[in-house]
Amino acid sequence: MAYIKKPERITDRSFEIIDAEIKRDFPDFQFQNDLEERIIKRAIHTSADFDYLRNLVFDRQGAQVVQEVIRSGGHLITDTTMAQSGINKRILKELGTETHCFIRDPRAYQIAEDKGITRSMAAIELAAQLEGPKVFVVGNAPTAIYKILEMIDAGRLQAEAVVGVPVGFVGAAESKQALHDYPIPSIAALGRKGGSNVAAAIINAIQYDIKDTIYQN
Amino acid sequence: MAYIKKPERITDRSFEIIDAEIKRDFPDFQFQNDLEERIIKRAIHTSADFDYLRNLVFDRQGAQVVQEVIRSGGHLITDTTMAQSGINKRILKELGTETHCFIRDPRAYQIAEDKGITRSMAAIELAAQLEGPKVFVVGNAPTAIYKILEMIDAGRLQAEAVVGVPVGFVGAAESKQALHDYPIPSIAALGRKGGSNVAAAIINAIQYDIKDTIYQN
Repeated sequence: MAYIKKPERITDRSFEIIDAEIKRDFPDFQFQNDLEERIIKRAIHTSADFDYLRNLVFDRQGAQVVQEVIRSGGHLITDTTMAQSGINKRILKELGTETHCFIRDPRAYQIAEDKGITRSMAAIELAAQLEGPKVFVVGNAPTAIYKILEMIDAGRLQAEAVVGVPVGFVGAAESKQALHDYPIPSIAALGRKGGSNVAAAIINAIQYDIKDTIYQN
Repeated sequence: MAYIKKPERITDRSFEIIDAEIKRDFPDFQFQNDLEERIIKRAIHTSADFDYLRNLVFDRQGAQVVQEVIRSGGHLITDTTMAQSGINKRILKELGTETHCFIRDPRAYQIAEDKGITRSMAAIELAAQLEGPKVFVVGNAPTAIYKILEMIDAGRLQAEAVVGVPVGFVGAAESKQALHDYPIPSIAALGRKGGSNVAAAIINAIQYDIKDTIYQN
């Protein structure tokens, strides 16, 4: 069987195809800037779904703020181990940025039981205790987004930005609309679609952009 | 903000919506059996994408064979840590079934370099050494699927079944078509779509079906 075995060639060719199909099928589509273009194309790359061209929204410089936190050694807090697992750690490590996920923390189970809330919400309470700049990366739990916004409202949480792309049929779209409307830098996938894979792809696109800039200079 | 905070209620309601929309939008669609129905609906649940109704194909009793391997304490080998991370481990543990991922194994880096192949292919060589019934779960790398089929052809690998759902623009569709055509029990997502999230969802649907059967008896 003849097939391409070089991973870099597969990736390059994939982005050529994505480019060409966007030009062919969405000739009027305009990216706002290079970073947002990279993010949208990587979301399409990870899902083979061109809906992300239309449903990814960037508010209050969300992409740039996330990039600044990554560049300056902050915290990325994911709601699922799957999103955490999909984030490439090599560049982050060089930049001193750490990923965290509290969903399987024994304290999260306890808080969830005590308060009758989801573990995703309990995990946000634990993350709020981290010192330093924080970006929340939510690929699965609408309740995590609401919890973040509630805690910010109550002055109990400081977050630089939120990447909110939970997938689903119950509450997901509403939670992402709430994030879109909230006065905080954010990236959201409006509608039902999203997921931990898309969450990880967004973070990877942002950090690969830093890497390319470093290499070029 | 008013929203549902009980995870079970969110899941139940999600599947009600999926059911209703399948009936409404695809009135002629017929599931072949209960297990395949569960798998397809969970793939839709994890992606919010009804394309999986049409593109998931089951060959040579693929779903049933995977379930038998899980039930009898076999090995599930994923191509990505993300797919491994998305698989619920609790029931598997009770059944004595283990998940493995060799992509970050130091030996995989070495084999890939020595042979000029992808690490995903090298990881298959390592997995081939496991004793006992094996199911391969591929959510990302078309080269992993080709490697599995080549090794089976060469008599160097025994696999009970392959779940092949890599996402992508280069080689993904072709690799899944090759799996679909190959005389081995399989589950494949034809076309470009798929991913580690879908791979994990398929395995979770199959194991939740075992759990429900155990509870009912």
